Amino acid sequence: MVPLIERKRNGGTLTAEDWSGLVTAYAAGQVPDYQMAALLMATLLNGMDNAELDGLTDAMLQTGVQLSFGPEAPPRIDKHSTGGVGDKVSLVLAPLVASVGVAVPMISGRGLAHTGGTLDKLESIPGFRTDLALDHVRRQIERVGAAMIGQTDEIAPADRKLYALRNATATVEAIPLMAASIMSKKLAEGLTGLVLDVKRGSGAFLPDVDDGLELACTMVALGERRGCPTVALVTAMDRPLGCACGNTLEVEEAIAALRNEGPPDLMEVVYALGVEMLLLAGAAPTAAAARATLEQAIATGDAAEKFGQIIDAQGGNAGVIEDPAVLAQAPAVAVYEAVATGTVHRIEPRMIGQAVVAMGGGRQRMDDVVDPTVGFVITVKPGARVEQGQPIASLYARDEAGIVLGRQALDRAVRIRDEPAPGAFPLVSHRITADAVSLVE
Amino acid sequence: MVPLIERKRNGGTLTAEDWSGLVTAYAAGQVPDYQMAALLMATLLNGMDNAELDGLTDAMLQTGVQLSFGPEAPPRIDKHSTGGVGDKVSLVLAPLVASVGVAVPMISGRGLAHTGGTLDKLESIPGFRTDLALDHVRRQIERVGAAMIGQTDEIAPADRKLYALRNATATVEAIPLMAASIMSKKLAEGLTGLVLDVKRGSGAFLPDVDDGLELACTMVALGERRGCPTVALVTAMDRPLGCACGNTLEVEEAIAALRNEGPPDLMEVVYALGVEMLLLAGAAPTAAAARATLEQAIATGDAAEKFGQIIDAQGGNAGVIEDPAVLAQAPAVAVYEAVATGTVHRIEPRMIGQAVVAMGGGRQRMDDVVDPTVGFVITVKPGARVEQGQPIASLYARDEAGIVLGRQALDRAVRIRDEPAPGAFPLVSHRITADAVSLVE
Repeated sequence: MVPLIERKRNGGTLTAEDWSGLVTAYAAGQVPDYQMAALLMATLLNGMDNAELDGLTDAMLQTGVQLSFGPEAPPRIDKHSTGGVGDKVSLVLAPLVASVGVAVPMISGRGLAHTGGTLDKLESIPGFRTDLALDHVRRQIERVGAAMIGQTDEIAPADRKLYALRNATATVEAIPLMAASIMSKKLAEGLTGLVLDVKRGSGAFLPDVDDGLELACTMVALGERRGCPTVALVTAMDRPLGCACGNTLEVEEAIAALRNEGPPDLMEVVYALGVEMLLLAGAAPTAAAARATLEQAIATGDAAEKFGQIIDAQGGNAGVIEDPAVLAQAPAVAVYEAVATGTVHRIEPRMIGQAVVAMGGGRQRMDDVVDPTVGFVITVKPGARVEQGQPIASLYARDEAGIVLGRQALDRAVRIRDEPAPGAFPLVSHRITADAVSLVE
Repeated sequence: MVPLIERKRNGGTLTAEDWSGLVTAYAAGQVPDYQMAALLMATLLNGMDNAELDGLTDAMLQTGVQLSFGPEAPPRIDKHSTGGVGDKVSLVLAPLVASVGVAVPMISGRGLAHTGGTLDKLESIPGFRTDLALDHVRRQIERVGAAMIGQTDEIAPADRKLYALRNATATVEAIPLMAASIMSKKLAEGLTGLVLDVKRGSGAFLPDVDDGLELACTMVALGERRGCPTVALVTAMDRPLGCACGNTLEVEEAIAALRNEGPPDLMEVVYALGVEMLLLAGAAPTAAAARATLEQAIATGDAAEKFGQIIDAQGGNAGVIEDPAVLAQAPAVAVYEAVATGTVHRIEPRMIGQAVVAMGGGRQRMDDVVDPTVGFVITVKPGARVEQGQPIASLYARDEAGIVLGRQALDRAVRIRDEPAPGAFPLVSHRITADAVSLVE
């Protein structure tokens, strides 16, 4: 082990076999955490070449089980997001795409730092289970067309162990390690294609678009080399996506979106990613045709119905589609009014996300229990003109103390100025394929 | 802890208080090895500034006890070597310098990789103990003028724990970490001055002279900032120093040196370092005067007598000074003859040191027991003309298999060619003080 660390430390490269051997040994408890930590830090600082990245990804993948489908099975496409605030895209996209005949085997995560997680959102639906065995997942995909689960012990267990170590050793931010971690899980799903939603802006884990593009290019190339065609879009996370931030509130907004009542920014991102999924699946000849197919599935109610089927298949109360009152509701609710007259300059997503956590809607420690009911619905967007006293948000909390916390957060996060607002990022700014990075009009 | 690792990873600096806090917490078992390993690797790759180095050194020093002497106490000077093959300088220098009235509180190490260690050599003297309590050490220094001990639990325990972690995580070679490790132990001795012997050449841990100079400059500046005037000499380790390599054999050669019968190269290095020690102590007005004082102490037998006093004070059989037969002798002995006629080009020190370890004279694993008797006495030096069949070395081994191993090592390590030898490094090439690096004539 020491010679391997030494080589990486000195700027050399390990072979795919080296990575494979050491990941297998680490998963088996034969390499101590401190040696792996030193190697990870050397890797973060000195980088990895493609062969190393492939070796690491394959090795993590192979420590677990993989979904497999016959050659006759329909295309299977997943979407992965690098995480944001108000990002309930998965809740809309998985049923929407499945409803037009493209299978979606989706492995998601939990809330991390200031960002929400799809699993936490789904679990606010009474009875919904995300810890399904892969066997169950495969059957559900064949029957319903989609499954929405978390990473179990079956899937890339070495990645889980490594991720926990990276989190404790300031090595999360290494782009090759991020790429290998994400792709080892995605490749376990037996996909025929993958779409990445790489967030940019102050609410993203990699705020700088150059870092986001590097991650996107790394993952797209890695996916291609591993036989999983991959496309990435860079989307805006300089403000929350949609209006709702908080688990139950986001499920409600996702259901509204599936019922053709979603906020325009959320729908634009959903459609952009959905179009890429349909194109990768060969389910539409052009982007325009794909978009029309998706809009139709929303308009007819097929997409909402599919969400009900998924909820039902995973033990949840599908009645939520018709009646959101099935979801637990926050005990304390308040209206937030604009503190001044002017233009909304910023709605700082990181502050909003942190406030949801502080109000009990996320985890400050690993073993915290999430209160799904708390959060915000912010009904204005940057650039909007507001009058002092005009209602611009609702707060949902466990008690009055939570309401006070939430108000303070909105006071800091929503910046109203008496001058024109600076430009926000385009909702979808870049498209990355194996061949090119292009700006989206 | 994670924000501290993050800062170091991003090329930032920690404060002295940061280092102090984390070293204290690590020594107390409150920081896990894996987080410290990540920090050490980031430190190796991103470096440390002076304030960090001071903070780390002070923090390690303060996890243990320090020797203290009154203001009336005589000067106390130690010598530290970065380690080599045949390097028995400490065994000669400590009694020699003590015999002229300069106290030498010396903390040494054990054999590491291909290099020998002063403690292992001393312990080949029957009864000699190196694990003395600091209280005992202080009294012995007041009474005898020198003590030769190992790092105990009392001295910089955080350094011991960190060193073991560095050894397992390929972070030994970080120059600031090396400097802090050495200096934290030396500062614990309550010194008034320190001389460093920084080895260069293929038998050194830092073979490249530029690395050696960087370490020397770092340590000299650190010593000065910590109130311990420090001077370094760069000396040759492209061939073994002296003739003997192996614990008992080196003790015998050191005693011969103290009796004015040492090999010239060993004596030159001993005198060069001894002169610096006397100058730092203010015990001689000029280098020439210091050298004369030291030569006199050898000629009169005072230095040899002082070694006897040290041995006696530490429980050893001082009769060894008069009669080396007191030492255990190797069961198998053989003469090695030149394999060809020509000029000795190289005597590769690393191969010789590795052979001593392989023959049982060092540790391949931490818990190996060292056989003090084995090793080599090589009576030629690079540049010497030899005739085929001329005896040029003696081998000392546990058995015939050891003799065979030793012969093979000499066949590889001693290179005889039929053309003039390339130049070897000067025995003493550079002198580093707080003010300047100068070439030694």
